[in-house]
Amino acid sequence: MRVIETIAELQTLSDRERASGATIALVPTMGALHGGHLSLVDEAHKRADRVWVSIFVNPAQFDDTSDLSGYPRSLDNDLERCRAAGVDVVFTPASDEMYPAADPTWVEPGEIAQFLCGRSRPGHFRGVATIVAKLLLAAKPHYAVFGEKDFQQLVVIRRMVCNLGFDLQILGGAIVREPDGLALSSRNAKLHPQARRQATALVRALDAAQSALESGERDALRLLHSVTAEIAKAPLARIDYAELCDPHTLEPAPARLRDSTLLALAVFFDPPAGVEGDAVRLIDNRVLQLRSDSHDADRPRD
Amino acid sequence: MRVIETIAELQTLSDRERASGATIALVPTMGALHGGHLSLVDEAHKRADRVWVSIFVNPAQFDDTSDLSGYPRSLDNDLERCRAAGVDVVFTPASDEMYPAADPTWVEPGEIAQFLCGRSRPGHFRGVATIVAKLLLAAKPHYAVFGEKDFQQLVVIRRMVCNLGFDLQILGGAIVREPDGLALSSRNAKLHPQARRQATALVRALDAAQSALESGERDALRLLHSVTAEIAKAPLARIDYAELCDPHTLEPAPARLRDSTLLALAVFFDPPAGVEGDAVRLIDNRVLQLRSDSHDADRPRD
Repeated sequence: MRVIETIAELQTLSDRERASGATIALVPTMGALHGGHLSLVDEAHKRADRVWVSIFVNPAQFDDTSDLSGYPRSLDNDLERCRAAGVDVVFTPASDEMYPAADPTWVEPGEIAQFLCGRSRPGHFRGVATIVAKLLLAAKPHYAVFGEKDFQQLVVIRRMVCNLGFDLQILGGAIVREPDGLALSSRNAKLHPQARRQATALVRALDAAQSALESGERDALRLLHSVTAEIAKAPLARIDYAELCDPHTLEPAPARLRDSTLLALAVFFDPPAGVEGDAVRLIDNRVLQLRSDSHDADRPRD
Repeated sequence: MRVIETIAELQTLSDRERASGATIALVPTMGALHGGHLSLVDEAHKRADRVWVSIFVNPAQFDDTSDLSGYPRSLDNDLERCRAAGVDVVFTPASDEMYPAADPTWVEPGEIAQFLCGRSRPGHFRGVATIVAKLLLAAKPHYAVFGEKDFQQLVVIRRMVCNLGFDLQILGGAIVREPDGLALSSRNAKLHPQARRQATALVRALDAAQSALESGERDALRLLHSVTAEIAKAPLARIDYAELCDPHTLEPAPARLRDSTLLALAVFFDPPAGVEGDAVRLIDNRVLQLRSDSHDADRPRD
């Protein structure tokens, strides 16, 4: 496994691999690798001859500096996991390699970045779109793989890749969960044990919505009520948002659900009373499928 | 010579050329090709095995819709000129090939786009940076060639290519002039004959500044006065801007000139009194070199 720190070296290697007919799949990460990332590496192995992982904690996508400084970093451990997973190249650029000028050029993702997390985290998706564009230009891969847990990120990147015309395919990897259902995230390690136990409220809320839908519920507000009621059972939880929207455009779902609908959740978990520490913000989501024997007038589009 | 209309076809051809070891130079244009463009094609031939020209009138860089609708279009003639100049591929995409989604992704070029033309033409360089990024992703060339007449465009694109990390080199081509000194431009054809004669005021103003500098003038304001006095001799001329600035950052030059300095001009030429028609905006520039035997305390940086 090669560890590469400069864009120029990565581009030279990409040219060589491409000229030899080998395909490359890139898995962009911010490090602190867990089973979710490793499932993306597996996905990459299925598609391409070479699997490259980038590890770069991107300052431009943090709207909160204490969130950036507190983001977990574990490079030695990450490299070990990559080696064990059969990764061919790990790209670990320094900050000034990715942001060379004081006057930056931004990739602005448009209205799709204004929904959901875009409202809570101003500038976040501009930072994501910009660093992903740079990583794609650095690695020049045939595929890039992103997890579906960051669903809006995946949609924003798909849109950017289509709009700017990158010559590659974006692949989404299914959410990986702990045995109790909590979606894997580097942020889970920052939860107080008590908050960690309550954090299963997210997946329970997704399940509650799915159950309601399967029982025939089509009213968006009543569906959301079952979601928020489930989350309210966790005393340390504070909802940032719980929304139903179109999984392609992220626009709010209609009052009466017709098509497959994204249920997206962002929830803060506070430390227990009397305990010092920052709240930890977790996200989770599920694309709710309406039953195929639906008798609704409007048929699903996909 | 091949004429290609889709990004996918161009990317496939680029991959094939690159894999075979051939180098590609792209000359992006908006058509209405003249000797200035053809000099860029010559420059491209000197550097690369294959010369590709793109012809696309980019709506996103027009801040004025009548300017867009009146922009000269002459595809048959352009293709003939490309053929005669030994161009290998002409890329002529339709508008929805380059802008596929209603919600666009923009490349925002930062503060460097706020100076000079950026002040007169809001959004212009965002449109330029975005379309150039798309063309570079479509052609995947080793070189891209831009004329120095659009000096700020060249600087904005160099900055974007550096910031985003495109794997290619940007080349600048020297300004080509008519026998009387007017810089070649597709807009020259729109000048009333009387305005056309007066349009040499731009190059005379550049010459006046160079002469003043060679006579030892280092005061920026007095130098600019010699520039505006020269332009004022043309009754149909209306100055949009006449500025001295750093040729790398485009920041305003110091009151006392020290280093090589860009003199950038934008001047409207009105039709003569009583004649119908729009004003035509022309630009021109020169990087003024301070004499190498300068005794100034601050040495030129380049």
